[in-house]
Amino acid sequence: MTFNAAHLLGIEHLHPLEITTILDLADTYVALNRSSAKHSDVLRGMTQINMFFENSTRTQASFELAGKRLGADVMNMSMASSSVKKGETLIDTALTLNAMHPDLLVVRHGSSGAVDLLAQKVNCAVLNAGDGRHEHPTQALLDALTIRRAKGRLHRLTVAICGDIAHSRVARSNLILLGKMENRVRLIGPPTLMPAGVAEFGCEVFDNMRAGLEGADVVMMLRLQKERMDGGFIPSEREYFHRYGLDSEKLAYAKDDAIVMHPGPMNRGVEIDGAIADDINRSVIQEQVEMGVAVRMAAMDLLARNLRARRLEEAANV
Amino acid sequence: MTFNAAHLLGIEHLHPLEITTILDLADTYVALNRSSAKHSDVLRGMTQINMFFENSTRTQASFELAGKRLGADVMNMSMASSSVKKGETLIDTALTLNAMHPDLLVVRHGSSGAVDLLAQKVNCAVLNAGDGRHEHPTQALLDALTIRRAKGRLHRLTVAICGDIAHSRVARSNLILLGKMENRVRLIGPPTLMPAGVAEFGCEVFDNMRAGLEGADVVMMLRLQKERMDGGFIPSEREYFHRYGLDSEKLAYAKDDAIVMHPGPMNRGVEIDGAIADDINRSVIQEQVEMGVAVRMAAMDLLARNLRARRLEEAANV
Amino acid sequence: MTFNAAHLLGIEHLHPLEITTILDLADTYVALNRSSAKHSDVLRGMTQINMFFENSTRTQASFELAGKRLGADVMNMSMASSSVKKGETLIDTALTLNAMHPDLLVVRHGSSGAVDLLAQKVNCAVLNAGDGRHEHPTQALLDALTIRRAKGRLHRLTVAICGDIAHSRVARSNLILLGKMENRVRLIGPPTLMPAGVAEFGCEVFDNMRAGLEGADVVMMLRLQKERMDGGFIPSEREYFHRYGLDSEKLAYAKDDAIVMHPGPMNRGVEIDGAIADDINRSVIQEQVEMGVAVRMAAMDLLARNLRARRLEEAANV
Repeated sequence: MTFNAAHLLGIEHLHPLEITTILDLADTYVALNRSSAKHSDVLRGMTQINMFFENSTRTQASFELAGKRLGADVMNMSMASSSVKKGETLIDTALTLNAMHPDLLVVRHGSSGAVDLLAQKVNCAVLNAGDGRHEHPTQALLDALTIRRAKGRLHRLTVAICGDIAHSRVARSNLILLGKMENRVRLIGPPTLMPAGVAEFGCEVFDNMRAGLEGADVVMMLRLQKERMDGGFIPSEREYFHRYGLDSEKLAYAKDDAIVMHPGPMNRGVEIDGAIADDINRSVIQEQVEMGVAVRMAAMDLLARNLRARRLEEAANV
Repeated sequence: MTFNAAHLLGIEHLHPLEITTILDLADTYVALNRSSAKHSDVLRGMTQINMFFENSTRTQASFELAGKRLGADVMNMSMASSSVKKGETLIDTALTLNAMHPDLLVVRHGSSGAVDLLAQKVNCAVLNAGDGRHEHPTQALLDALTIRRAKGRLHRLTVAICGDIAHSRVARSNLILLGKMENRVRLIGPPTLMPAGVAEFGCEVFDNMRAGLEGADVVMMLRLQKERMDGGFIPSEREYFHRYGLDSEKLAYAKDDAIVMHPGPMNRGVEIDGAIADDINRSVIQEQVEMGVAVRMAAMDLLARNLRARRLEEAANV
Repeated sequence: MTFNAAHLLGIEHLHPLEITTILDLADTYVALNRSSAKHSDVLRGMTQINMFFENSTRTQASFELAGKRLGADVMNMSMASSSVKKGETLIDTALTLNAMHPDLLVVRHGSSGAVDLLAQKVNCAVLNAGDGRHEHPTQALLDALTIRRAKGRLHRLTVAICGDIAHSRVARSNLILLGKMENRVRLIGPPTLMPAGVAEFGCEVFDNMRAGLEGADVVMMLRLQKERMDGGFIPSEREYFHRYGLDSEKLAYAKDDAIVMHPGPMNRGVEIDGAIADDINRSVIQEQVEMGVAVRMAAMDLLARNLRARRLEEAANV
């Protein structure tokens, strides 16, 4: 089993073998979660703190369930209503929490890089639950597990990521992961929602859905994040759906057995037709949610093993 | 033990023997809760999610404690601040949660029928914690347990339900339960707060407290829910207390050993005189809260048994 | 082991031997919390409810972790958004909670004396997590443990408490505790932030930092609580820092090995220079947070023992 990381800050830092290790372990947790005895003691005696500086009901819920099912003592801290308001700095908040001796710290933050900074200040394992437009590694891992289970493999696939690429850490983490595993990635979206410099990731860029979807194995739709668009191009929902929304006509350009993904929550009728989202022959959107809990269990399990081993080593060296 | 239900959506669907089964089991949980070892492993390995689309501190607390004391992994989701806000539909939210494999889903929602709809979309046991003006089954069950323990029986009693009947799912669920157990129910309240069609439930309707309370064994007061009254008759609190508030003068019309109930939180001096509420010889208001936790433990225990049995059967058939 | 209290309402009611008992037990929990197996079953079967009528992310987190690590079933109730809003009285809220049979009730309230009042109405152990300007006993205990570990003793020390004394329950509880343990306490702050009648506690009062810090073993800074100042003297932050903020120049008047404390969250550059706060040779601010969890574990452990013993006695007498 190859997994050497002390933190899960981004896909960028993971070796392909580490990715495979997480996904293999996650497969076993999928089975556990489907049973009536979905509780283990893998994290018993460990404390998990979820620090969400941005609200995200579903991601926080997924991490919370993952930790509780592994037997950790889990605590949520809604940082929006906390002492951060009273003017405390991020670093002071981190040091305070660190003094309470968490073992696993799950952090979502609105600023790219904030989670990395925080990880340098604490003694425990840090999991990035999304930072700004930077990374969202567990999302990319759950997407990878969903693809691997649906397609039987996670390499030499043509994956089209469609929509609001510029504002999406989901796109960014997926792009890195799919590249590492030697897939062909295409980015499709309006030029105004396409970030500069994507070419260096070795992917093709399209602004036409039909051309981009041609022969794709996987169609990954993104949420149109109007809340993050300040100025610039703000498309009307109707116009956007017409040009970039996934409907059966456009989907027909992909392979016959192409799967459809979406990180949720969906804007039905904006980036995706509701009928496609509900089509159990094509859509794996609910599987993504299911894989999310399993992947987070696997990641926390592996990080906790490394943390225990590191502490034993440190104790031996004293 | 008779209890065949997959969900607890309303009293309407329960057989009298099922009601008795819940109450009998709840009696054993009352004893557990009074001890210093109020924790069992009945729900160990199961995940309970509390989804409250309407805030209700005390009902949510009661369900949360019930689940934790039974050893479940319990997660609260405050849906007011969730992705529902981002435009996700109720069904998408339900499907997302379902993919996380909860075993027990406790739902409160502002719309009548929303919880039934949701139950059709998920694989787990759903408990209705109040939906619109429709049902609030655990409230009726805890009231029934309170009555049975105070009166020694749950049949052939005269029960007066008083106040704002029209806006009350508590009244509705109680009316159905008390009718099933062959009690005589009287509804007392101003005609403007009395719903149409109550006659078909076989109960008597009064708009005079003294006449309605005559000979009652149980006096069940309801909270005046000004927040739900849009237009129409809005009584002044003083006038309301004068005509419909329970004070010692009006209570004297009931039987000498009549008990006084209220689902809480109380408006002292509006629907009930504070002195009556605090009279430990008459008021069982705190017993109602105590029975609430026990009844919810019993209901979740029974639903979990059925869920496990159903899954074993499905596994055998595969 | 001497600890007879049924509640932890204030330092005022504790005997010096009881304080020592809590600190000795807390020392063992410090070690537990530093391990990878920071979970015990001391409170298994017991229910802890945290009722915070005022928000306090870090104090609530500390109590929550303490209870979870001891194996209690822990429930947080955010009372700001609860039925208190619907007009329920504090006493009704207390009686309702009491009927749910908590074993440990942790309460923070904005009014001095509210927690004492509440303790009279319930059957369980109550811990005061801060009430108005009255007491904050676990803060004083964690400060005491921090001092004892840093200085090797908790008596015959010169402790300077500096800043906004008038608005501070932290100062008040510390003043009482340090007096009971026979230390010399000095209060330093602007006369407008100094409460009347402090002389009766047997402490010296200074309005000059340099004079007050002269020869101090411990320098305890307080947060400038602008939010509690209504009218009267509101200092500018710059002026305040100049006169009362702790910087290296002023700290030089204290003993060479004096430690620096702050209850957090800090206003860097207002009551304390950031460089002092971060100086690991002087500042024990993070140790304070660490000791907080341990002291709360010890207090809850001891209160639970007394509660169990009292219940056994009551059962024997029936």
